[in-house]
Amino acid sequence: MKVVKFGGSSLSSGEQVKKVLQIVVSDIERKIVVVSAPGKRFASDTKVTDLLIQLGEYFLQEKDVSELFGKIIERYESLAEELHLSSNIVNRIRKDLLCLLERDRSNPERYLEAIKASGEDNNAKLIAAYFRNEGIEAHYINPKDAGLLVTDEYGNAQVLPHSYENLSNLRHQPGILVFPGFFGYTEKGEVATFSRSGSDITGSILAHAVNASMYENFTDVDGVFSVNPHIVSNPKGIRELTYREMRELSYAGFSVFHDEALIPAFRAGIPVNVKNTNNPLAPGTLIVNKRTNQNGPVVGIASDNGFCSIYVSKYLMNREIGFGSRLLGIIEENGLSYEHTPSGIDDISIILRQNQLTSNIEEEVINRIKTELNADEVIVEHDLALIMVVGEGMRHNVGTTARASSALAKVGVNIEMINQGSSEVSMMFGVKEADERKAVQALYEEFFVTVPV
Amino acid sequence: MKVVKFGGSSLSSGEQVKKVLQIVVSDIERKIVVVSAPGKRFASDTKVTDLLIQLGEYFLQEKDVSELFGKIIERYESLAEELHLSSNIVNRIRKDLLCLLERDRSNPERYLEAIKASGEDNNAKLIAAYFRNEGIEAHYINPKDAGLLVTDEYGNAQVLPHSYENLSNLRHQPGILVFPGFFGYTEKGEVATFSRSGSDITGSILAHAVNASMYENFTDVDGVFSVNPHIVSNPKGIRELTYREMRELSYAGFSVFHDEALIPAFRAGIPVNVKNTNNPLAPGTLIVNKRTNQNGPVVGIASDNGFCSIYVSKYLMNREIGFGSRLLGIIEENGLSYEHTPSGIDDISIILRQNQLTSNIEEEVINRIKTELNADEVIVEHDLALIMVVGEGMRHNVGTTARASSALAKVGVNIEMINQGSSEVSMMFGVKEADERKAVQALYEEFFVTVPV
Repeated sequence: MKVVKFGGSSLSSGEQVKKVLQIVVSDIERKIVVVSAPGKRFASDTKVTDLLIQLGEYFLQEKDVSELFGKIIERYESLAEELHLSSNIVNRIRKDLLCLLERDRSNPERYLEAIKASGEDNNAKLIAAYFRNEGIEAHYINPKDAGLLVTDEYGNAQVLPHSYENLSNLRHQPGILVFPGFFGYTEKGEVATFSRSGSDITGSILAHAVNASMYENFTDVDGVFSVNPHIVSNPKGIRELTYREMRELSYAGFSVFHDEALIPAFRAGIPVNVKNTNNPLAPGTLIVNKRTNQNGPVVGIASDNGFCSIYVSKYLMNREIGFGSRLLGIIEENGLSYEHTPSGIDDISIILRQNQLTSNIEEEVINRIKTELNADEVIVEHDLALIMVVGEGMRHNVGTTARASSALAKVGVNIEMINQGSSEVSMMFGVKEADERKAVQALYEEFFVTVPV
Repeated sequence: MKVVKFGGSSLSSGEQVKKVLQIVVSDIERKIVVVSAPGKRFASDTKVTDLLIQLGEYFLQEKDVSELFGKIIERYESLAEELHLSSNIVNRIRKDLLCLLERDRSNPERYLEAIKASGEDNNAKLIAAYFRNEGIEAHYINPKDAGLLVTDEYGNAQVLPHSYENLSNLRHQPGILVFPGFFGYTEKGEVATFSRSGSDITGSILAHAVNASMYENFTDVDGVFSVNPHIVSNPKGIRELTYREMRELSYAGFSVFHDEALIPAFRAGIPVNVKNTNNPLAPGTLIVNKRTNQNGPVVGIASDNGFCSIYVSKYLMNREIGFGSRLLGIIEENGLSYEHTPSGIDDISIILRQNQLTSNIEEEVINRIKTELNADEVIVEHDLALIMVVGEGMRHNVGTTARASSALAKVGVNIEMINQGSSEVSMMFGVKEADERKAVQALYEEFFVTVPV
């Protein structure tokens, strides 16, 4: 049994929804279909969810919403028309949305949740109707009836543990189940939405609950690229990567999934397949717990900038028990969160995102480190980029570091920092921001072009 | 004005002491001479200090000490004879030592301190007498009279801050001042010795107090080697290195100085010259605050083994605030001190000396990390060696990492870990212990042989 999730761009028009149907029926294992709200049809288009948020806010501010309301209904109308559905479905959606607008407004945050979530909810109803219209047994599933219970953290709801048992009953329901993404219900029966990429979260939860053999996630790209296409043109795609590799890549610039979206699937060990609705025969990218095939030590290269390092040295620091924790205490007391702490014998560097570091905080931190810890030297280096070279295959591959650092040396990039744990799933290089592009290009050349993978 | 310290092997025989006199008089700046107790004359010989410790312990146990006492006096007799000194000096030493043995034994630790320290004290008297005998104005300086005050931490005494002012008056005393190393006096007037390499500490304190232009430290080697001569035969010597470089080297196998010995000189910015009593014209090794001449990116390579790493991975660790400090809390609560904590995105390794890690503690730590922190994976890797490649010149030298890692790859050594702070005074490689020799040899070959320095 597979759980299949379709993103907004896969559901933006009737033409796209027809592709979705073809995909779902082409594999008998595809039973649970998680849908987003209709997305952009073209670059300057607006997503239905964004229209809904604006609608709710305008209504709260008692602004005129008739034009906005019309725009939203129009999206469903055009879908229904393209899909040859009766106008009943659009009438129901119109009535539903009017009801939502007229609900209790005493808690604006809670009020907006149900309006926001209606994009997915109504789309699921529409798509289930379309499937049935095409002669396929399909049912809209209401998350409340199915028991998808969540905390009342509006906009960042967390799934409650007993949801999994409730949802496992979906296995036994007949036909194709169309489930709206992005939201669940609190124990008081209120709608609460997940965070960013909420439909991915819904799919991941359902895959876990029904113990799916696969969680397929359909988007508008053929899969995950091995490097940022804005830095290297036409980069190779990744066929298979592990959860760990994906995490390391997503840390620095790769935004395949919102980090937390895959936790439920990951914990249940369910493989995730990122596929393209517009090219469903392409194998896409498979995210797994353990990789079997390895085609080179490096699976991907990611980079991110806007980091800085606070370098602290003190003679005999190494023998001063508690120096490290007092140093990190000063960092934390200034509300700073740090990423890494590479250390020498008598020196330690704290790598952090520099947008946290106003010049006031910087001065305060430097002063405290100097006076409270008697440091010999405190130097802040700004504008660093971190480059992650990621691959499970690096673990026992003699010479990967040599290849990476030689590639950087060849193009004249100085390595400001290296951080490599004993895991060797990744190597992290710190370079100056100005060198970021050059460095990523050189590493891509070394690992993906020079030696064919 | 220079402070000149001579180690035990430089004072082990009359022949050696004659060299000391030649060295002192050959440079008019050499005013303060710090002396150790007579050391070994040949490999199987025993240092006078070791004899004295045994003497005191035997006496406390009421064993017969006549043979041991005779052996000690014999050392001074043979020195006096070789140096053509009258027997008065030896008689005074004998009487002094008898007095020390008969002192209050109620606090055995304190009792032993004065006996231990008498090796240096009596040697200073003997050497001052010899200098005078040779027509040179020389004075034995009693640390109590000079005001070298220390804490009462016997065997690990710490200099008290006002000692520096007291000792600064030595600048104005005429002649050459022979000062016994290794001990000072508590405020109650009791002898208290420094830790290991105590005479180095005395010299360093005096250099600071009199604001010496140089602290010369005479031993029996031509200076500091660039690599362990037991791993690479006939390695190059180091002409000049910074305090930081020395510290990084001494961390892993280089035992030039006891770590703390040079703090007073370092804090006052006084250069230290390590020289050879048996080859005083050789330039030796100069330890300075900042190096000017740079003859290659790497100044030395050191290694040490007996490390292990605890690798911890957890999906989304990076977003879990406080994970790092809770992890280190578990480590510290088990009485373990750690060396480094290289980290990836969702993993962190804790590098520590494995002699701390009994199988019980190891099991306890693994269990707690798994249960309290819900880690996905906890793996302990044993028998690691850390290799430090050290040099201030590495900071802005593009390609040093590439050279080092390529050299290791060429001999088939897998790099288990890299830790490089933004300082770039050092690069640390973790390798398997079995690869340590091969790795050090390859790095030496790369940085000291292939490219002439």
